[in-house]
Amino acid sequence: MAEVQEREPATGSRWTRLFEEGSAQMRDLLGGKGAGLAEMSRIGLPVPPGFTITTEACLEYFRQERRFPDRLMDEVREKLRVIEQRTGKKFGAVKNPLLLSVRSGAKFSMPGMMDTVLNLGSNNATIEGLARGTNDTRSAYDSYRRFIQMFGNVVLGVKHERFEEALAGLKQARGVKQDVELTAQDLQELIKDYRRIVTEATGADFPDDPVKQLENAVRAVFESWNTPRAVSYRTYHKIPHDLGTAVNIQTMVFGNMGPTSGTGVAFTRNPATGEKILYGEYLLNAQGEDVVAGTRTPRPIAELAEEQPEAHQELQRIADLLERHYRDVQDIEFTIERSKLYMLQTRAGKRTAQAAVKIAVDMAHEGVIRQDEALLRVDANEFEKILHRQVDPAAPKTVLGRGLAASPGAAQGAVVFDADVAAERGRAGEKVILVRTETNPNDVHGMLVAQGILTGRGGMTSHAAIVARGIGAPAVVGAESLRIDEGARQFSGDGKTIREGDVITIDGNTGEVILGAMPLVEPRLGGHVEEFLTWADEVRTLGVRANADYPEDARKAREFGAEGIGLCRTEYMFTKEERQPTYLEMIMAETEQERRTALARLEPLQKEDFKGLFREMVGWPVIIRLFDPPLHEFLPPLHQLVEEITRIELTGKESDWLAKERDRLAIPAKDPGRLERLRALRRRVQELQEVNPMLGLRGCRLGILYPEINEMQVRAILLAAIEMKRDDGLDVIPEIMIPLVGHVNELRVVHEQLSRIAEQLVRESGVQIKYMFGTMIELPRAALVADQIAELAEFFSYGTNDLTQTVFGFSRDDAQAKFLTRYVERGILPEDPFRVLDRDGVGKMMQIGTELGKKTRPNLEVGICGEHGGDPSSVEFCHQIGLDYVSCSAFRVPIARLAAAQARLRESVKVARDV
Amino acid sequence: MAEVQEREPATGSRWTRLFEEGSAQMRDLLGGKGAGLAEMSRIGLPVPPGFTITTEACLEYFRQERRFPDRLMDEVREKLRVIEQRTGKKFGAVKNPLLLSVRSGAKFSMPGMMDTVLNLGSNNATIEGLARGTNDTRSAYDSYRRFIQMFGNVVLGVKHERFEEALAGLKQARGVKQDVELTAQDLQELIKDYRRIVTEATGADFPDDPVKQLENAVRAVFESWNTPRAVSYRTYHKIPHDLGTAVNIQTMVFGNMGPTSGTGVAFTRNPATGEKILYGEYLLNAQGEDVVAGTRTPRPIAELAEEQPEAHQELQRIADLLERHYRDVQDIEFTIERSKLYMLQTRAGKRTAQAAVKIAVDMAHEGVIRQDEALLRVDANEFEKILHRQVDPAAPKTVLGRGLAASPGAAQGAVVFDADVAAERGRAGEKVILVRTETNPNDVHGMLVAQGILTGRGGMTSHAAIVARGIGAPAVVGAESLRIDEGARQFSGDGKTIREGDVITIDGNTGEVILGAMPLVEPRLGGHVEEFLTWADEVRTLGVRANADYPEDARKAREFGAEGIGLCRTEYMFTKEERQPTYLEMIMAETEQERRTALARLEPLQKEDFKGLFREMVGWPVIIRLFDPPLHEFLPPLHQLVEEITRIELTGKESDWLAKERDRLAIPAKDPGRLERLRALRRRVQELQEVNPMLGLRGCRLGILYPEINEMQVRAILLAAIEMKRDDGLDVIPEIMIPLVGHVNELRVVHEQLSRIAEQLVRESGVQIKYMFGTMIELPRAALVADQIAELAEFFSYGTNDLTQTVFGFSRDDAQAKFLTRYVERGILPEDPFRVLDRDGVGKMMQIGTELGKKTRPNLEVGICGEHGGDPSSVEFCHQIGLDYVSCSAFRVPIARLAAAQARLRESVKVARDV
Repeated sequence: MAEVQEREPATGSRWTRLFEEGSAQMRDLLGGKGAGLAEMSRIGLPVPPGFTITTEACLEYFRQERRFPDRLMDEVREKLRVIEQRTGKKFGAVKNPLLLSVRSGAKFSMPGMMDTVLNLGSNNATIEGLARGTNDTRSAYDSYRRFIQMFGNVVLGVKHERFEEALAGLKQARGVKQDVELTAQDLQELIKDYRRIVTEATGADFPDDPVKQLENAVRAVFESWNTPRAVSYRTYHKIPHDLGTAVNIQTMVFGNMGPTSGTGVAFTRNPATGEKILYGEYLLNAQGEDVVAGTRTPRPIAELAEEQPEAHQELQRIADLLERHYRDVQDIEFTIERSKLYMLQTRAGKRTAQAAVKIAVDMAHEGVIRQDEALLRVDANEFEKILHRQVDPAAPKTVLGRGLAASPGAAQGAVVFDADVAAERGRAGEKVILVRTETNPNDVHGMLVAQGILTGRGGMTSHAAIVARGIGAPAVVGAESLRIDEGARQFSGDGKTIREGDVITIDGNTGEVILGAMPLVEPRLGGHVEEFLTWADEVRTLGVRANADYPEDARKAREFGAEGIGLCRTEYMFTKEERQPTYLEMIMAETEQERRTALARLEPLQKEDFKGLFREMVGWPVIIRLFDPPLHEFLPPLHQLVEEITRIELTGKESDWLAKERDRLAIPAKDPGRLERLRALRRRVQELQEVNPMLGLRGCRLGILYPEINEMQVRAILLAAIEMKRDDGLDVIPEIMIPLVGHVNELRVVHEQLSRIAEQLVRESGVQIKYMFGTMIELPRAALVADQIAELAEFFSYGTNDLTQTVFGFSRDDAQAKFLTRYVERGILPEDPFRVLDRDGVGKMMQIGTELGKKTRPNLEVGICGEHGGDPSSVEFCHQIGLDYVSCSAFRVPIARLAAAQARLRESVKVARDV
Repeated sequence: MAEVQEREPATGSRWTRLFEEGSAQMRDLLGGKGAGLAEMSRIGLPVPPGFTITTEACLEYFRQERRFPDRLMDEVREKLRVIEQRTGKKFGAVKNPLLLSVRSGAKFSMPGMMDTVLNLGSNNATIEGLARGTNDTRSAYDSYRRFIQMFGNVVLGVKHERFEEALAGLKQARGVKQDVELTAQDLQELIKDYRRIVTEATGADFPDDPVKQLENAVRAVFESWNTPRAVSYRTYHKIPHDLGTAVNIQTMVFGNMGPTSGTGVAFTRNPATGEKILYGEYLLNAQGEDVVAGTRTPRPIAELAEEQPEAHQELQRIADLLERHYRDVQDIEFTIERSKLYMLQTRAGKRTAQAAVKIAVDMAHEGVIRQDEALLRVDANEFEKILHRQVDPAAPKTVLGRGLAASPGAAQGAVVFDADVAAERGRAGEKVILVRTETNPNDVHGMLVAQGILTGRGGMTSHAAIVARGIGAPAVVGAESLRIDEGARQFSGDGKTIREGDVITIDGNTGEVILGAMPLVEPRLGGHVEEFLTWADEVRTLGVRANADYPEDARKAREFGAEGIGLCRTEYMFTKEERQPTYLEMIMAETEQERRTALARLEPLQKEDFKGLFREMVGWPVIIRLFDPPLHEFLPPLHQLVEEITRIELTGKESDWLAKERDRLAIPAKDPGRLERLRALRRRVQELQEVNPMLGLRGCRLGILYPEINEMQVRAILLAAIEMKRDDGLDVIPEIMIPLVGHVNELRVVHEQLSRIAEQLVRESGVQIKYMFGTMIELPRAALVADQIAELAEFFSYGTNDLTQTVFGFSRDDAQAKFLTRYVERGILPEDPFRVLDRDGVGKMMQIGTELGKKTRPNLEVGICGEHGGDPSSVEFCHQIGLDYVSCSAFRVPIARLAAAQARLRESVKVARDV
């Protein structure tokens, strides 16, 4: 929209503006609705004359302890005189009376939160005048009774139901169904009834003085800014509480003046699909509230073309004009009074993610907006919704409970409480939802085939959430209101019990757990999405890689446009089902030799894992993180093991749980040394136990104590790359990442060991391959001494999950359930820092690390591989501090591409503005 | 020592220096011994003529792959000619032959690590000449056989034992006990035997060419720099490996030339007590190695005054002269050859902490050094040793095992495995040592009365270590080699089993656990220690406070000079024995009301706690940290509870452990609902369980969720201060510290709540008191946003224990045992960062926090209350970055006072140097 010179208000006006004195830019002062009315008036659209009481008047009202600002009502009277002149009507007059609509309108739309009064200025005398003037007694009475009802409710606080009951009683008495079937006489009776209701409820007569009515209505609108529901709405939507509302006072036009009158709402394009067609609904012989009240069913806007062709044509013309004028889809309100169209509101139209993309692409093609503007028109946070199937929003549903919306999309299937069963039934083609209290690496085989994952515990970065996002499976995690009983194979929620095999739907966009199979809507991945993302790629300077642990992830990641792998977590490969006994051997090993024997069996398997991954990423870099988790993560929890062993010792009986654990760990039931082996297991669990495992023996610390683990992995990585190059001529660039470095000497020890092995392997092979060694920056100390670390590391990758843990001192495993969710609810933290990167703390740490690192090694490759890599605000920050790439789960790659482009565009805008 | 102009070496000398060409400043080039010999030569003391082969020659030897540098031996021959001229003897000549001593000497003393050869130049011919010249055949043969033995062992690698056996065999055959009883003829026989041994062992004749002998001896000294034992000695003592050793070649003087000859070592003052008296020992008719070999018992130096009065007088004169010259106590070696005294070495004398203080104070009084120099003469790290009783270092002992020397001093008593028993027997006046696998707050009542504490697990910052240091009880923690069986009430170590009641001694200075009651030495806290610390107080600018939780701690802290309390951990007060049932009620509370009821019962007790503390600290600030630990810390471990409940369910029997837990938690055995209550306890433990409790629901997070806990504490603090002021007119300045703040909003919520309560209490009381609100900076994020936090906080206290945890990602509870000790052993970390502040990481974080905080609030009070507050290097760093005070356990307050003074002095020196 072109810049508009703000017009000077009429002399002496401080608190009010005529519509034509304002413009679209003045949303702060006039509110959204007022600015829209002003803009439409300014460009000559048919807007009933009126004026706006500014938000400043509202704020002054509260500042003065709920007293009107000086001269406010004087100005109102002055403005009314202008309108009277313009309309030839007179407020409060019997002959040709001016009736008014009084509507609230804050800067940000708060639909249904604040108050509206129509037909203000009605009383017995003015209504008689109106009836005479319009020659339509029935409509006049209809307007009057609506006024009493609205004013009575909004301004005088009479319960809505009182009026509704009277109206319903009358209709019943008259044997009619619709309001419009009531005659003028019926309405006259109703008016008397309404006035009596008001007198009974308030102890005073209904106020007939129009000026008094107006004053009270303005006050009521001001007051509605601070109703509890308005306050909590703003809190929820993060709208500031100090904006105040404007009040729009406007000449009434009457959609209830017979069959050539009507009222409606429309979008200039379809807000669900983005299709370029006027979309909306209307009612003839009605006023605004009828459309939303639902007593009569509104009709699609297309039918208006038949019923009121001229009005429809005019509406289409104005819709086109407004869209071009605002350069965006508009959401408009209109009234037709005796075939004449009036515009009552225009604002940017809310739309689905799908529609947003289509509209942006179409408008760019139409030349209405530029490509870079198109990119900024789509909220990157919403973008992921278009990539997953959705629960049909229109379908009725029974919600069993809610959790965190951890991985988007909808999934449905039979409930299963066990990864093995899930794997079995899933492989047999059955659709299952894996339900667990929480998941761990031993559940991955079941997760891979499940339609979706539901857990009772854990946060947005729990194992379940990370794996689900990685494989693109919808997931709801941490559904604490559900009582999940894995032993009994059932869970209950909202008073219902769901047993194994029952079908549920989980909605990974809303976090809802729903009974039964809900109808789903397929994602609309039209060609315009691809086109849109190509535009993003042209703009962005930040690279986008994917976190992928399996070839399937990698393939999806490439489909979604990932430029390499930013994080492959090798431990997930270790714990694949068939490798578990070998892995257990490694953990139980008491000597280096025993450990090496187990590792030697794992090496060829890992090499094939890496080849699988590399084949999907030919030509791209692949960052592989060396073994990272504490060894005990794989073992059963101590208290459970203790309980089981105590029970066996005392009764000889073992539980189902134990039987399954034994199987998993390849300890046969008939093994005569079974109990001894279990005791050995308990001893090992006890030995490996740590009070705070996250701050314990893991990452490079393990590699320093047991260098043979890293050695095996580096051999597998390099041999995979060498063989692929030698046998198939295929190139990849393995980047070997050493995790959890805090002191440069840790990196030095590991780097010396591993680079020696790598050099030897390459030398012996005679094949030329490129590879790098680098580290994860995931401890505050690493960032603080990044200059030292960069002497050895050729690349950095910020592990912001762990970094957030240590910078905040928040345990990822506990914080959300214990206090973090409540922190966010209470506004103590603006966001969950595990979801949206905390710029002041974690971000500052990243800035320090990046600056120091690049000081030592200017061509240092720096990226991020925490969950934040797929969050738009975090991606923007990564762009701002000059990272080379972000890495996120495959399904978030498109979001990251868009967010990276938007970050670049916003930066240009800022630079342009600063210049 | 006055600056000395370095003399130019003789023309053409590159690798060698005559003693008179060097000086004390040239330790880098000449080694410590060479520099001492040079300095003594330079100032005219009777040093046998000689020269030094420089450390650079040694380094060049290794650079050239173990070849002598060019011209090295040419220079050696030139220098020998100078010595021959000066002594009138001739190297290799039969008449009046020059024999040499060849001794290593690196920059830093490495006693016994490297090699020495005496009497070099001996062969059949030269020895005959020597015998003739000295008219003493026996001494000559004695020197010869010593030479063969030393050269054979050191240079030719023949086993020492071979020679010893031959010597012992001969003495047996001759029926004598002492070497000196052997006749010249015996020795001649022995020489033949020795030469045969060498030929047998090396396959070659003993080398008779003196020049060859010299060349090989020099090579052997060079090589001794890199023997494995020398390398590991340097690694352990953090001596760089690239210094090389010098070789000192010196005219032999003979202490074995009959009863008017002898050799000895002496300190210019008593190194154990500091007493100003020549202290040492000597042997007549002996060479150097006899003094250390232990075959003859050396005699105290005082006796020399009778046996050799002139030599003794000369020795005393030279000792005084050297001490004044070096301005420090000297450790000297001398030889008397036929009543003539020769000086063979001088160096700064090692001394005990007690002696160091006394010597420094005395020397300052004597005017030898200034007061500020005196302050720098005492190693602050050693200082704490003078405040505790010591195990008599001379007494023989049976060491059962070793742990970390967690709290200094020696303690002895009967072993007790249970805090209750310890409390009971301790109160009855018995001396007990509390032995536990690890301790927790429930053991404090037992710890308070125990003589000392021994644990099998935990590090320098474990509960046991912190409490022990706080109360000044000696402690050895983490003695992993002991097998402690609390159930069986015994532990075993080094093959011995110690049962309850057996007496042991623990040495908190060395970490040794010793069988039986060792003789102890009382600390010598003479007036000079007080005087010394007063000098420190005059110099330092950094304040010193104490961490104290109980009035007893506070009293000790004041005795030791603390200027207030820097940290009172209120949770220790919560868990005092008699309060445990009430505390349990608070933890088990399911509603706020239940919690408030329990808290209301605790409030008056807490108020009395604070009054007790305040009374010891009248006029000083007292920082009280609000409740900090996770609630579950007080409850039994889940796996143990699970095991017990499973057992009761299956057998109805409970263990001793459970019976005791029940008692502690006031769950009577006869309670019919006992099992139900235990199950409720298990449920609560499970609910409160966290994967990483250190990063969990604790500190201000608890206070935000359960504000009633903080409310009670703030009431108790302020009421205590108000009542003390009102009733007794006594002032204290409570500083209320809100722990674990990471985001300013956390502080805001708590601060708003508590300052309101505080204001109201003060207003209602009508009493004027001063108090402050502040926070602990113990999370990286807090330091990074310290500018925001300082808007509310009036003081900061760095909680460097926690800060070290999060900056490094090291769990205090696990890291030492799991990997940290090995990290330090392998040199991956220079120090345990929980003991010595890590300047690059944690320190940088503190610098950032302090700068940001003072930017917002220039008069912000900033201190440290982590364990580092009592570590000298850490105290120095705190001084450097401008903190206002350090706070440490009472027994470390004197150390901190000294370290703060030293930091200030070193800074002045640096400033002076920079100017």
